[in-house]
Amino acid sequence: MSQRRYAIIGTGGLGGFYGGRLARAGRDVHFLLHGDYRHVRDCGLRVDSVEGDFVLPSVRAYGRAADMPRCDVVAVALKTTANHLLPELLGPVIADDGVVLVLQNGLGVEEQVAEIVGPDRVMGGLCFLCSSKVGPGHIRHLDYGYITLAEYDSRHRPRGITQRMRAIGGDFQAAGIRINYAEDLVLARWKKLVWNIPFNSLSVMLDATTDRIMANGHSRALAEGLMREVAAAASAAAGRETPEAFIQSQLDDTARMAPYSPSMLLDCRAGRPMEIEAIFGAPLRAAAGAGCLTPRIETMYQLLKFKDEANQRGTAF
Amino acid sequence: MSQRRYAIIGTGGLGGFYGGRLARAGRDVHFLLHGDYRHVRDCGLRVDSVEGDFVLPSVRAYGRAADMPRCDVVAVALKTTANHLLPELLGPVIADDGVVLVLQNGLGVEEQVAEIVGPDRVMGGLCFLCSSKVGPGHIRHLDYGYITLAEYDSRHRPRGITQRMRAIGGDFQAAGIRINYAEDLVLARWKKLVWNIPFNSLSVMLDATTDRIMANGHSRALAEGLMREVAAAASAAAGRETPEAFIQSQLDDTARMAPYSPSMLLDCRAGRPMEIEAIFGAPLRAAAGAGCLTPRIETMYQLLKFKDEANQRGTAF
Repeated sequence: MSQRRYAIIGTGGLGGFYGGRLARAGRDVHFLLHGDYRHVRDCGLRVDSVEGDFVLPSVRAYGRAADMPRCDVVAVALKTTANHLLPELLGPVIADDGVVLVLQNGLGVEEQVAEIVGPDRVMGGLCFLCSSKVGPGHIRHLDYGYITLAEYDSRHRPRGITQRMRAIGGDFQAAGIRINYAEDLVLARWKKLVWNIPFNSLSVMLDATTDRIMANGHSRALAEGLMREVAAAASAAAGRETPEAFIQSQLDDTARMAPYSPSMLLDCRAGRPMEIEAIFGAPLRAAAGAGCLTPRIETMYQLLKFKDEANQRGTAF
Repeated sequence: MSQRRYAIIGTGGLGGFYGGRLARAGRDVHFLLHGDYRHVRDCGLRVDSVEGDFVLPSVRAYGRAADMPRCDVVAVALKTTANHLLPELLGPVIADDGVVLVLQNGLGVEEQVAEIVGPDRVMGGLCFLCSSKVGPGHIRHLDYGYITLAEYDSRHRPRGITQRMRAIGGDFQAAGIRINYAEDLVLARWKKLVWNIPFNSLSVMLDATTDRIMANGHSRALAEGLMREVAAAASAAAGRETPEAFIQSQLDDTARMAPYSPSMLLDCRAGRPMEIEAIFGAPLRAAAGAGCLTPRIETMYQLLKFKDEANQRGTAF
């Protein structure tokens, strides 16, 4: 039985699902909450999942990071739009030899954490998950769930598969979560962007799930054009190659899968801020820095920025 | 007093306004109608206009082109989405020495008419007008109204300002319509696209009027990027130059003008087909034929095509 203590920084659809699974499997898990802190403290967590519903009537819930114990694995499960809060959230929680597991979307998120806790205490976790919070302490897991783990390197080199990756991965596997190990975090991040950039932006701007985007010849061609620009940016900005066969398999897999609402579409429909800077802004800046033109991505970014600002003006916070 | 007889092919917001003004000024005007033919035949036309409301209790209304007399000036005021009807509409109406005045948006519309009536009987009319039909036989003119006239040339050469341009222009001027004369139809069409391509597409995809597009730094930058691609396409595909100062003045004028809903936004909101092929498809094909890359325009085209098809699926016709 593992002695590792876990912190879940941000108990939403993602943090609530993974943290809930770890807790159900007997791990020592400490949940940081915001809006529904009192509810979860008093009533626990409920997870409705395609892999089986469960309730945790009593969980270790916190309303402030300063009240949490030091943890060996601090899982960052906030939306990147809240990353300005990370300095105050991570400092009190991470154990001296602990690691921050960044379960966020986009590019450059591990760098932000490394600036706070140092480069040797950062691991990337790329989540392929469809899950959302539908009420206080109430998570609905709709599909997928696997995580790709990879070590962060301050000079962006592949770090291979380390012992602590396998240790943490083992805890998740014991909780029924499928884990992949990647040798190269940078490549894994860019490969995920190959899917995330087209389907997050098109789903929002067309208000459509993946099946409708793939069924229309024009939006499908645009998705493919966006994928090629991401691949060109990965090559120019990071020296990482995402082969043509990978792009084709991403398109084919998306055409075959059940209608899917990317996270940005869910955020937009719910009036929440969208993760535009992490998923679009950071890759665009990397491409521009390498002299790589990405006009289609830039166009989608500009459209999304307008939409996000209009959404946020219309929403009370 | 002019003896020219006018036909208005399509009595919507545009045809009803210009035709109504000509009729009010005493011209002999014959209106082709579709949905509201009986209403206009029995009750006439009503035009609510920022330049003064008026009612024409009795107008020459027709439900079929075959019933119309031969006319000296046949003004095409249909949406380009109905241009497949032109062969049957123009043939019975145009006098032997008559001219078809193409009051439509986009590129290549005069070519379509020239194929039907021959290249010497075609004149272009570029309308800067905000007007729509708000009920049977009821037009609402909100702003603008001037027309730029230019002769069509089958080899795309500037044809200068002809006597028949001045004759027709004089009839419109006598009806209180401001007229510009352009020597080069091709240049005039591309210059209009410099505005129409960014603001029609952005207004639809962002569901926003021009003031909001200009007030947001991201959408304003995208409008400028689209304008530059149109200018590059005009240069490569047609050898026409739209100088940097023209682009800047278009942006500045748009920022200064009252909130404006481009025609494509009005069509989209009303569930009507959008004029995507005339305003986007034809320029894109011209650019591609000249080896000119226009990825931003192509992106907007692909988004609009999805939106239009979704709109039309949701609408009963």
